[in-house]
Amino acid sequence: MTSTPKPLEFCGRRLGGNGRALVCTPLVGRSTRALLAELASILPQSPDLIEWRADFFDAIADQRQVLAAASQLRQLAGSVPLIFTRRASHEGGEPLAMDEDSVVELYAAICASGDVDFVDYELSQSEHHRRRVRAVSQAHGVALIVSCHDFDRTPASVDMLETLARAEREGADIAKLAVMPRDPSDVLRLLEATLQAHTALQIPVITMSMGAMGALSRTCGWQYGSSVTFGVGHRVSAPGQIPVGVLRSTMAALGAAG
Amino acid sequence: MTSTPKPLEFCGRRLGGNGRALVCTPLVGRSTRALLAELASILPQSPDLIEWRADFFDAIADQRQVLAAASQLRQLAGSVPLIFTRRASHEGGEPLAMDEDSVVELYAAICASGDVDFVDYELSQSEHHRRRVRAVSQAHGVALIVSCHDFDRTPASVDMLETLARAEREGADIAKLAVMPRDPSDVLRLLEATLQAHTALQIPVITMSMGAMGALSRTCGWQYGSSVTFGVGHRVSAPGQIPVGVLRSTMAALGAAG
Repeated sequence: MTSTPKPLEFCGRRLGGNGRALVCTPLVGRSTRALLAELASILPQSPDLIEWRADFFDAIADQRQVLAAASQLRQLAGSVPLIFTRRASHEGGEPLAMDEDSVVELYAAICASGDVDFVDYELSQSEHHRRRVRAVSQAHGVALIVSCHDFDRTPASVDMLETLARAEREGADIAKLAVMPRDPSDVLRLLEATLQAHTALQIPVITMSMGAMGALSRTCGWQYGSSVTFGVGHRVSAPGQIPVGVLRSTMAALGAAG
Repeated sequence: MTSTPKPLEFCGRRLGGNGRALVCTPLVGRSTRALLAELASILPQSPDLIEWRADFFDAIADQRQVLAAASQLRQLAGSVPLIFTRRASHEGGEPLAMDEDSVVELYAAICASGDVDFVDYELSQSEHHRRRVRAVSQAHGVALIVSCHDFDRTPASVDMLETLARAEREGADIAKLAVMPRDPSDVLRLLEATLQAHTALQIPVITMSMGAMGALSRTCGWQYGSSVTFGVGHRVSAPGQIPVGVLRSTMAALGAAG
């Protein structure tokens, strides 16, 4: 049998667990108006999750504007869960003129707002900051994705497994790993490590091999236990993302093939 | 970089080599009329190759009827190359009331007819029969696919590589291997073995991991060096085949993902 990905749990809801990956589409608008237009264009594609990549938001340093945007996104998204992510520039995000203390306080305000269901924060951040994000997310019932990105290479298999296991040990509700392949075998190693982590960990894992070479992992990662795949709704937020429609038809074909 | 599959060469033509897998659709009609209807319904999907699975043909023991059907398929197919395959029942084909000597003489007649471009014959057949098929195909400029199928399991990686290498040593123009996965890791092993065979062998290889679990190999095998993928045009001829349209859109998305 294939390895059924674990469902995501948040605020008493369960999402997924029906044998396929959940499809998440990113929002990368620079203004509230652009974000709302992007979300409106994505919703007809019925994403399971929406990730707001807030590092693309021009006014990210203005907490009031961020909270106002989150509130409007929440209203428009309806029951579709929202992930709030400020991807750090050293892990592939947009460069920000903002220190990490301010970022963490933004996470605290976002968690308190009740407008998002998940936040994503990097394993590479200081323990001090990670603990604070864990505490504020827990206090407000927001699920925490602890993520790790390597845009340069695919680490040794044992190291990938350890990264995901460490995210779990340090309190993640969901562990996420994105790596870059240098040759086609690297993609197979990421999938094998995913399967091992899916078996070894209690929490759901989300993994992907990036770029064109790794794109296949976005279509079949669920067969190796990855709970979420990121598909292009409007514009890519990471290399190798595939349009949501192709993702869905491929996953359906892979699942239906008999 | 991904591993560009080798082109197929036959009768002075080259097919493929443009970075993706060639898409082959099987014909499984039981009568000439059914085969022609099937082919007519498949041609609008622009397959790169057509495989006539002649073991499904009720009149396969009547050489005259087989040759007449081949001639009509050739005419209707136009420039789309044809593969003639009598899949042996011990490798997943339909049971036939025909001894292997007669089968081999049918291959000789089909090769002499000029109506097919490729024949597929199993590595598991006796050396005597394989030599005869190699000789008659060579004499008439028909390319020989030497195939091996395991519907029960995925052999050890070293054995899969050796099977493909043995097909090459024994005169194949193309080596084909189809195996069944028992767990998701088996699919990854088949892809890794494909990559190794693609590098080690001079001839093109065609591989697939069968069933729903292996179906992903049909969408991404070309990134590991497999030259042909089999897609459903009308009806599946082996477990795990995906509709041609989904195959193409997935391969395009995997190739275009940036």
